Amino acid sequence: MYEKIMDARRKRKAAHNRQEGCLRIFRRKVDSVVHIEKKLKDIAEFVKMEQSGILSAGEETRAAFVSFTSRYAAATACHMRLSVNPTHWITERAPEPHDVYWPFFSASFIKRWICRLAVIIGCALFTLIFLIPVFIVQGLTNLNQLEHWFPFLTIIFSIPYVSSVITGYLPNLIFQLFLKIVPHVMEFLTSIEGYISHSEIVKSACNKVIWFTVWNVFFATVFSGSAFYQVSIILDPTNIPSRLAVAVPAQASFFIAYVVTSGWTSIASELLRVIPLSITLARRFLFGEEILEEQVGVPTQPYHRDFPRVLFFGLLGITYFFLAPLILPFLLIYFCFAYIIFRNQFINVYGHDYETGGKFWPVVHNTMIFALLLMQAIAVGTFTLKKLSVASSLLFPLPIFTLLFNEYCRKRFLPTFKAYSAETLIKKDRQDRNDPAMSEFLDKLATAYQDPALMPIPFPPDPESLTSPLLSSEVRG
Amino acid sequence: MYEKIMDARRKRKAAHNRQEGCLRIFRRKVDSVVHIEKKLKDIAEFVKMEQSGILSAGEETRAAFVSFTSRYAAATACHMRLSVNPTHWITERAPEPHDVYWPFFSASFIKRWICRLAVIIGCALFTLIFLIPVFIVQGLTNLNQLEHWFPFLTIIFSIPYVSSVITGYLPNLIFQLFLKIVPHVMEFLTSIEGYISHSEIVKSACNKVIWFTVWNVFFATVFSGSAFYQVSIILDPTNIPSRLAVAVPAQASFFIAYVVTSGWTSIASELLRVIPLSITLARRFLFGEEILEEQVGVPTQPYHRDFPRVLFFGLLGITYFFLAPLILPFLLIYFCFAYIIFRNQFINVYGHDYETGGKFWPVVHNTMIFALLLMQAIAVGTFTLKKLSVASSLLFPLPIFTLLFNEYCRKRFLPTFKAYSAETLIKKDRQDRNDPAMSEFLDKLATAYQDPALMPIPFPPDPESLTSPLLSSEVRG
Repeated sequence: MYEKIMDARRKRKAAHNRQEGCLRIFRRKVDSVVHIEKKLKDIAEFVKMEQSGILSAGEETRAAFVSFTSRYAAATACHMRLSVNPTHWITERAPEPHDVYWPFFSASFIKRWICRLAVIIGCALFTLIFLIPVFIVQGLTNLNQLEHWFPFLTIIFSIPYVSSVITGYLPNLIFQLFLKIVPHVMEFLTSIEGYISHSEIVKSACNKVIWFTVWNVFFATVFSGSAFYQVSIILDPTNIPSRLAVAVPAQASFFIAYVVTSGWTSIASELLRVIPLSITLARRFLFGEEILEEQVGVPTQPYHRDFPRVLFFGLLGITYFFLAPLILPFLLIYFCFAYIIFRNQFINVYGHDYETGGKFWPVVHNTMIFALLLMQAIAVGTFTLKKLSVASSLLFPLPIFTLLFNEYCRKRFLPTFKAYSAETLIKKDRQDRNDPAMSEFLDKLATAYQDPALMPIPFPPDPESLTSPLLSSEVRG
Repeated sequence: MYEKIMDARRKRKAAHNRQEGCLRIFRRKVDSVVHIEKKLKDIAEFVKMEQSGILSAGEETRAAFVSFTSRYAAATACHMRLSVNPTHWITERAPEPHDVYWPFFSASFIKRWICRLAVIIGCALFTLIFLIPVFIVQGLTNLNQLEHWFPFLTIIFSIPYVSSVITGYLPNLIFQLFLKIVPHVMEFLTSIEGYISHSEIVKSACNKVIWFTVWNVFFATVFSGSAFYQVSIILDPTNIPSRLAVAVPAQASFFIAYVVTSGWTSIASELLRVIPLSITLARRFLFGEEILEEQVGVPTQPYHRDFPRVLFFGLLGITYFFLAPLILPFLLIYFCFAYIIFRNQFINVYGHDYETGGKFWPVVHNTMIFALLLMQAIAVGTFTLKKLSVASSLLFPLPIFTLLFNEYCRKRFLPTFKAYSAETLIKKDRQDRNDPAMSEFLDKLATAYQDPALMPIPFPPDPESLTSPLLSSEVRG
């Protein structure tokens, strides 16, 4: 068993700030006077001393990576509660080395719990009151107000088609632009929730974006009222089916148009990668930078941006197929295009930072179950409205069976997404025992995880004492 | 590692039926003709052959007890998912030998899951429609109907006080009698839910009885309408606080009386143990049986009968203390008496079949949290009704804090009720290693768990080949 001791958070932060200071000075004044270089050298020495001080102090560290010689032993340590107080020692599977998200690495249970609660409340508030600023900004787009603020626009608005295009298109454009920032906001919120890996952050952000989309695109459009009106509907559960049955079919044409405008265009822009292209071009022309391919790197798939959109179109298909079957050919075209284009993107464009290990599947499953329940609620409501009481009472077992199916899947399949079974682990361990590459792999493990705050700083350029990694194999436990 | 292979369920059942047949014949015709005894001997031989056939067949068994030499190894096997398919191998901590509930011992995951679902639905239906037969029977107690069915009662009813006592007291008595059968019904329902130990059954039944009591005593009295009316209230969550605020204070005097009539009398009858006493007396006088102390045995505490009652009085205290503080002295007297009497019962009367290991505490915790939330909802409703909007909005954080406290307790304390930590287990294992009694204990383990269907039958009385236990140490793996 090798042990790599990481850091005491407090000290690291101090060291980190100092290091950043150095780098900023270094870049800007590299050709400046010699005495600054001297000073820099002193600071670098000091940071180095501080860093090694943290490593060799022998104090208790607040978080550590522990590696095991067998997968089974690691799983045992991970799944057993280790200390009497369950909040005292928390064990998690370590993410891949480049997937670690360091800011919460050594956070205590209580800190992470409070952060998580705060983020949940933050996300709920953001989702609930998102529409208010959107409506305010959309309100500003009525022509009189625009002319009042920008008098020069009066001439443009007098051209026959322009004003109708602006009033018809601008509110929708503003809404779409606001929607574009949602994945980034959710990713930011999730990043302060206490996860220790980027992949977990993206997965959780993906979930949040899906519920945001369902709430603020589907329900907001269907009930086309304020968020508070929607809340009042949710708080009155018996009336939900009949209200849905009235409101949902009325918006069928809107959602068919939505599939075309939002779905097809998003797929097209995915192929062209308009935004990265324009950013690169802008940088090249404005700053005259010559961007080499190596500097740009392979782009990665922003799962939390693309997954929710695809799932939302699935939800639209399931809820509308019996109310407005006309939506189906449009969705079919969308999904065919999406298949072709994403296949191309995965093979030729995107690299991947980490193995998702199929962990996004439960998100898909949950969304599908929700879509089915929603569809059944709408169907019950529609039949009740049309006074087909036999049909609506015959439909009642359907949501129950859907929930039972969901419950069965949770029992039967969900555990496989959470942890490997002892059977699999032991089989893999036996295979590894005969693998000659294993000892090399275990040697590498000791230096695989390196806290960026403990990495040697790149100044001065050559002395060997500073460029050698701080975490060497001598700290093996 | 020792392995005790138990049985193939199907075969055992057949053997069991045959064995029961034998016993029945044996008891009734012991002094009958010799050829029956001969036949019995043959059947007993046959059962013995069948039983040993099951043990030595070498087929795969559907369930088994597996014992480990260390607690830590057992916990590892118990908490890891063993097979790739999580429904294929289910591991549970083995209950104490006399606590095992055999009927579901070798049931498959799917069977237990379906049983559990069926029982949950059954309990919900029982709780919902319990009041209907009660009201019907209570309806029969009006005097005209009674006189119609039993004409001789007319004379009795003509005595001045009798009729008022009957109309005033009989409905309540019927309700109390119906309530008396609830713990037994719930215990029966839970016993077919798939638990493999009596203690788990009692714990789960206890939970069910609590929610039954809260629903059918508290809410049914407060809203004093049919079950369906209550359902309609639950389905309209925004109005719950205001409706509670109207209905709950109106029933204060009823619940004060309830504490006296139901609480004080139950405690008194607990001390006197009226029902067991009368049953014993009845048996002695009717059947002339001379019951020896050994035959009766030490009675055990029916947790699922007494716990819910005590908890329900706690709930009454929490919800009524600010609406009708007069209830508090009555409750105080109840709890003081209950403390003294149950203390006496635990020390001098009851034995215990199994160690509960404090596992009933989460039930108490959940009931208390529910009582607090209910109290806060009533308080918010009361302040809203009295138009003290500042007070009611100041109260809103209270349920949130209660839920957060509950959530924290679930994270911090609930895991300790579910499993021991590795720290504790390893400490205990180290203590055991130096204990000379351990090897003897491990030897005993091999024959500790004996399926009653595989026990040797008590006929014929002496041949040694039949009385030796079927499970000997030779089947150790």
